[in-house]
Amino acid sequence: MSTVDQPRPHVVVIGAGFGGLAVARALGDDVTVTIVDRNNFHTFQPLLYQVATAGLNAADVAHAVRGLFHGVDHVRFRNGRVSGIDTETRHVVVEGQQLLGYDHLVVAAGAATNFFGIEGAPDHALPLYNLADAVRLRNHILGCFEAAQVDPAAVEDGVLSFTVIGGGPTGVETAGALAELIDAVLSKDFPDLDLERVSVRIIEREQQLLAPFSSPSQQHAHDTLVSRGVDILYGANVRSVAADHIELDTGERISTHTTVWAAGVKANPLVESLGFEQGPSGRIIVDSDLSVPGADGVWAIGDIAHIVNDDHALPQLAPVAMQTGAHVAAQIHRVQRGEPTEPFRYTDKGTMATIGRRAAVAELPFGIRLWGTPAWFAWLGLHLVFLVGRRNRLSVLLNWAWNYFTWDRGPRLIFGPDTEPEN
Amino acid sequence: MSTVDQPRPHVVVIGAGFGGLAVARALGDDVTVTIVDRNNFHTFQPLLYQVATAGLNAADVAHAVRGLFHGVDHVRFRNGRVSGIDTETRHVVVEGQQLLGYDHLVVAAGAATNFFGIEGAPDHALPLYNLADAVRLRNHILGCFEAAQVDPAAVEDGVLSFTVIGGGPTGVETAGALAELIDAVLSKDFPDLDLERVSVRIIEREQQLLAPFSSPSQQHAHDTLVSRGVDILYGANVRSVAADHIELDTGERISTHTTVWAAGVKANPLVESLGFEQGPSGRIIVDSDLSVPGADGVWAIGDIAHIVNDDHALPQLAPVAMQTGAHVAAQIHRVQRGEPTEPFRYTDKGTMATIGRRAAVAELPFGIRLWGTPAWFAWLGLHLVFLVGRRNRLSVLLNWAWNYFTWDRGPRLIFGPDTEPEN
Repeated sequence: MSTVDQPRPHVVVIGAGFGGLAVARALGDDVTVTIVDRNNFHTFQPLLYQVATAGLNAADVAHAVRGLFHGVDHVRFRNGRVSGIDTETRHVVVEGQQLLGYDHLVVAAGAATNFFGIEGAPDHALPLYNLADAVRLRNHILGCFEAAQVDPAAVEDGVLSFTVIGGGPTGVETAGALAELIDAVLSKDFPDLDLERVSVRIIEREQQLLAPFSSPSQQHAHDTLVSRGVDILYGANVRSVAADHIELDTGERISTHTTVWAAGVKANPLVESLGFEQGPSGRIIVDSDLSVPGADGVWAIGDIAHIVNDDHALPQLAPVAMQTGAHVAAQIHRVQRGEPTEPFRYTDKGTMATIGRRAAVAELPFGIRLWGTPAWFAWLGLHLVFLVGRRNRLSVLLNWAWNYFTWDRGPRLIFGPDTEPEN
Repeated sequence: MSTVDQPRPHVVVIGAGFGGLAVARALGDDVTVTIVDRNNFHTFQPLLYQVATAGLNAADVAHAVRGLFHGVDHVRFRNGRVSGIDTETRHVVVEGQQLLGYDHLVVAAGAATNFFGIEGAPDHALPLYNLADAVRLRNHILGCFEAAQVDPAAVEDGVLSFTVIGGGPTGVETAGALAELIDAVLSKDFPDLDLERVSVRIIEREQQLLAPFSSPSQQHAHDTLVSRGVDILYGANVRSVAADHIELDTGERISTHTTVWAAGVKANPLVESLGFEQGPSGRIIVDSDLSVPGADGVWAIGDIAHIVNDDHALPQLAPVAMQTGAHVAAQIHRVQRGEPTEPFRYTDKGTMATIGRRAAVAELPFGIRLWGTPAWFAWLGLHLVFLVGRRNRLSVLLNWAWNYFTWDRGPRLIFGPDTEPEN
C-alpha cells in the first residue's frame, strides 16, 4: 500500500458494477485502489433479461473482476460483503471483521429490488436485478412448462400465465423476449401443450409503456408487443402477489404462477446502516461534485446515489453510473493536487429498449428516433461494444447470430442457485 | 400413446446420459419412448473437469433433452426423479406419485460417487460426476484463492493445497487442468500470492496412474504431470477426510482445504430400492443380452449395469453406455418382431486421457499409441465430434481456441448451486 517515497492514497470502491469499474479504470497509479464486491465478477445488467429468457448463458454477461485488471498493479480486488463503514476512523468493514482503511471511499453498491411494500411480493415475485435473479427466473419459467406438461390441472391453475409488473425498459424487454422464447422455441420443446393457454402480460400503473420515451415510440412499443401476443394492462395497480395469482387494487384476481418484478429499485440496503442522508428510494444525497455531505472523503455514484441535474434526479442507468464514476475519479485526483472539485454534468446520449427480434426503440440526441430493425441493430451493436471482456463479446455475438439464424435459443437448463445436490 | 390401429409399445428410459440418449435415438417410431431424467438436460460428463477448472462454462457441456428431439414425435421427455419401479404392474413412479406404465423399461440412471466408507469423505470431499459437482468444485477452488488473498494464516493452514484422490483418467485430467489453471491464469489473478505455496497432488492407491493404460503411457502421464508441478503419491490410502486435511492409513496428515474425489463410482442409489440382483459397486447384474434377470421387459445399460464380456466387467465409460444403449434398442425391436435376442459384444475403440495443454495419452486398437500433441489434438477432435448439440460444439471450439491462443480461461465466476440470494 506504500512506495518507498511516500504512502500513496488508498481509494476503496464498494461495488464492481458499471460505476465502480469506471472509477477504478479512470484512477491513475498515483493512488492505490481496492474494489470490494460480494461477487467475484462484474455483471452486465442490461442483458440479464436475455439470461432469464435463455437467449444467453449466465457466463456470457459476467466477467471476473480480477481478470479486468491483469497487469494493473495499483488496482486490487477484495471479494466480500461490506458490512459497515466508519467515517470517523475511515475504515470499511468487510465480512464483519476485515478492516480496510481509506483516504477516499467511493460508494457504488448499486440498488436492490423495491417491492414498495406490496403484500407477498418479496416472497412470490421474481426480480431481475442480478445474475442469480436472472438464472432463477429462467429456471422458474422452464419449470412452469415442465409442470404444465405433467399436469393439465396446473394449466387451469395458471402455470402458463406469465405476468410482468412494470412497463419500463426492463419489463418491456423481458415480456418481449419471453413471448419470443415461447413462440420460437418452447412451442417446439412442448409440442403437446396448447399454446392458446399461454399468456404473457405487462401490468403498468401509468397509461403508457417506457416512461422516458416519446409518445410515438411508446405507441410503437405497444403495437409491436401486442402483435407478438403480449397483453398490456394500463392504469393497473397490484395490491398483492401470491404463488399462484396476483390481485389488483380493483379487486380483480389474475391467475399467474410467474410474477416478474420489473417495477423499480431502491438503494442497496447497505445504505441504511451508513447514516448518510437519504433521498427518494433511499438513495444517498450527494453534493454537486458527487461527494457525500458531512463524510469527508466519501463519494457516491451510480444507482445508489440521488444525483440531481437541472432540478431533475438522474435515472438509474448504466450511462449515469459510468459517467459519475469517471467524474469522481477526476475529482479524487483534483483533491490530491489541492485543486477545487467540479460539479458533475450528465451527458444524455440517448435511450434504447429492445422488444424482440428486429424490434427496438431508440431515442438519440437531436431528436433522432429509430424504430424496428435499425433500432434493433443499433441496440445490438451498442451492447456488444459496452459488454465487458472480449471473450464475452465474441460469445454473445455467436449466441445472437445462432439465435437469429436458427430461431433457436441457448441451452434451456433448469440449473443454478437453487439446484440441489443430486445424490 | 396409441395409434388408431393398435397401441404402440411404450418404452420408458430412465436417464438422459449417453446410454439413455443412445436408446432413444436408436428406437424407431413403431414404439413410443419416454425419457425420464431429474435434470432437464443431458450432461457431457467427459468435459466436467474443464468446467471445474474454469476452462468451459457449465452451459457448454449441457443440452436440454427436449431440444434434442424436436420433430421426433415418438420420443417424449419427463422431467422428474424416479422414486420407484413396480415390475409386477410395469409402472415407474416419478416424484413419488406420477405413474408411467411401460412395455419395456431401460434403466440407464448412471452412477453416483463411491466414497468407500472413508470417514468424512461424504461431507468434505468434492466429487466430479455431475454438473452441480463441477460448478461447486470450481467455486471452491476460486474461493480458496480468495481466502488466501485475505488471510495469510489460511495459506499456512493449507488453503492453497489441492489434493486429488485417485489417479484414474478423471483424477489425472483434473490435476493437470488445475495445475494449468493456476500457472496460466490464477497467477495473474492473484499477483500478490506466493505461488510457491500452492501445491497440487494426486493420491493413488496403486503403483501407477491410469490403470487401463499401458506402462509406457502411464510413465508418460507421470512425467508430464510432474514436469507441470503435480506431486504424485503412489501406494497411498486415505483413511479420513476433513475440511482442512486428510489422513493417510500410515498416519500421515496432509493439510488441504480441497479434496477432489476421483476415486470411483457406484451404481445410482435408485438401484437399492429396485430389488434387482446387484454386482460389484451395487451395479445391476444383467444377462448377456442386457436384460435384467427375473424382471420381464427390463433392461439395464451404461454405468448402472454390471456388464461382463470375456469374463471381464466392462469399465464405466461413455462408449460402453452408448454401445449398450444401441444394443438394447435393437433387442427391443427384436422382441417386438418375436425374434430371439442377441448377446452384447463391446467393441473397444481405445482410451484417451488429457493431461493439459498439448499433452494427452491415447491408446487405440492395433497397438497404436499417441502421446503429447498428436494425442491432444485427437482428444480435442473426438470430444468435439461426440459433444451433443451443434451450438455446444461451436461454443466449446471457440472456448478452446480462446484458451489456447490467449492462455486465458473462461469467466472464473464464483456462482452456482450454492449462491445465496443477494439482498
